[in-house]
Amino acid sequence: MIDLPTFSDVEDAFIRIQPYIHITPVLTNTAINKMTGADIYFKCENFQKVGAFKFRGACNAVFSLSDEEAAKGVATHSSGNHAAALALAAKLKETHAYIVMPKNAPGVKKRAVGSYGGVITFCEPTLKDREETLDKIIGESGAAMIHPYNQKEIIAGQGTCALEFMEQQNDLEAIVAPVGGGGLLSGTAITAKYLNPEIEIIGAEPDGADDAYRSLKNNERMPMTNPNTIADGLLTALGDHTFEAITKNVDAIITTSDESIIKAMRLIWERMKIVVEPSSAVALAIILDNKEAFKGKRVGVILTGGNVDMEKLPF
Amino acid sequence: MIDLPTFSDVEDAFIRIQPYIHITPVLTNTAINKMTGADIYFKCENFQKVGAFKFRGACNAVFSLSDEEAAKGVATHSSGNHAAALALAAKLKETHAYIVMPKNAPGVKKRAVGSYGGVITFCEPTLKDREETLDKIIGESGAAMIHPYNQKEIIAGQGTCALEFMEQQNDLEAIVAPVGGGGLLSGTAITAKYLNPEIEIIGAEPDGADDAYRSLKNNERMPMTNPNTIADGLLTALGDHTFEAITKNVDAIITTSDESIIKAMRLIWERMKIVVEPSSAVALAIILDNKEAFKGKRVGVILTGGNVDMEKLPF
Repeated sequence: MIDLPTFSDVEDAFIRIQPYIHITPVLTNTAINKMTGADIYFKCENFQKVGAFKFRGACNAVFSLSDEEAAKGVATHSSGNHAAALALAAKLKETHAYIVMPKNAPGVKKRAVGSYGGVITFCEPTLKDREETLDKIIGESGAAMIHPYNQKEIIAGQGTCALEFMEQQNDLEAIVAPVGGGGLLSGTAITAKYLNPEIEIIGAEPDGADDAYRSLKNNERMPMTNPNTIADGLLTALGDHTFEAITKNVDAIITTSDESIIKAMRLIWERMKIVVEPSSAVALAIILDNKEAFKGKRVGVILTGGNVDMEKLPF
Repeated sequence: MIDLPTFSDVEDAFIRIQPYIHITPVLTNTAINKMTGADIYFKCENFQKVGAFKFRGACNAVFSLSDEEAAKGVATHSSGNHAAALALAAKLKETHAYIVMPKNAPGVKKRAVGSYGGVITFCEPTLKDREETLDKIIGESGAAMIHPYNQKEIIAGQGTCALEFMEQQNDLEAIVAPVGGGGLLSGTAITAKYLNPEIEIIGAEPDGADDAYRSLKNNERMPMTNPNTIADGLLTALGDHTFEAITKNVDAIITTSDESIIKAMRLIWERMKIVVEPSSAVALAIILDNKEAFKGKRVGVILTGGNVDMEKLPF
């Protein structure tokens, strides 16, 4: 059953997670505005705890559990920001986070999860072994599964970013957010369209992992096959929850190339003096690719995270 | 004659430049505080216009000129942030900035000066040719020479950073600022000691360019010979003005290695998600090198700039 959050769920999530999250700043940049012809407002979730918006959803999911449920721990399989986010949320709730990670995950990701006290179980880097390992852990511990995106509480938590953003900048005409599994885009769209039905909500997707674009075009959830993009946070496919939320609330998905993503990422680093990961730069990349569409508009861009391996920069 | 600014000159400078500068944010980071045992407040001049505190001094110097003087233009020799800062200040005053740069200066620096409308004259990369070229330009144009650091208006302008900082965070027990030519450290010390005579002011210097350290130790201005450090904004030696200001007002100069500077720089990028240049990281490097000295204190750190060649990162 598809159970999507309402605006009221997002408001509840915001109250629930407020003691734990950072209210992240909104930045503007004169040079980038000149370059695009738009007024762009950047919501800096790279400054969020654990360095990514993912902490909002994870925190809402963990703190939505009853004390009894939470005492058994939480579990997920992820090698990315969701894993670190869930580990920190569990630590704050004083319970365990069981994280299943492929044994070939980058050292920097393993250390991040470990540093927040997450209990890591390594598995073979196949979806089958991931899922079997996770099922085994959940069977033994009774831990609550927290999905990285296809879950009501996660979507509601990610929606708090748009809630905050539209309070900070109440005259936005459009919001562009990257789409991978679709948790952020779903939460953003549900929240923003409630607050302002006229606002345009646009998903930005790498063309090397464009299942959301194809799914919207075909009005049917399409599989992701061999995703290949530098935006390593956007390799996952939409779930049934996020597909429905996006179909109902998002105006368009626009895709872009890795070349444009790297160019946009470098522009943000050089001009704004902030560190963002490639997935964060996809939204600015589509604006730079399609200047006419955004010209003269007040556009909100969600910079999703700042966790980059400094030894593997694309420039 | 040594003519140092007073606190009142710094206040005047602040009023003069306020329409043009950014009020830069003060950031803190839990992980870095844990690592050092101190409460560190980072004043983010990497977010200043042109990406460095240098814009404060350049702006004050240019807007201190009479309209008649300013009409003839301003001139300097520099291949760094001062050149870009002076070019932008001159543009805002609607006059010319004549910048003498060695012809082997990095392309990124040339483009920065050019993008703010600076008039570049290339010279041989020797001090002699630099000075002769500059003298010739000043002789022909009547432009006002604006020194990168050894000048009253520049020191007063750089002092506005500490003025702002101590308003934003009024309980600092120490401020650490990098020292190259000494303009920022002089302005910081004059301002901070006036506002709170008890505050400790510490200069942070790369041990590969340690003329300030040696000068304070010998109580005599020592020459800089063959400076060699990754902190390319700190290669210059103290002038007579900055030597006097620092001798009178600074409590200590502490030096550090390039290895520590790179480590601190990477820590700032990875943990704080902001882009700072190597010169900016010297202050945090000395705190990490000397944890006992800073433990339990509220320490202000000035992050001086964020202009980095992304293709030549040290990690």
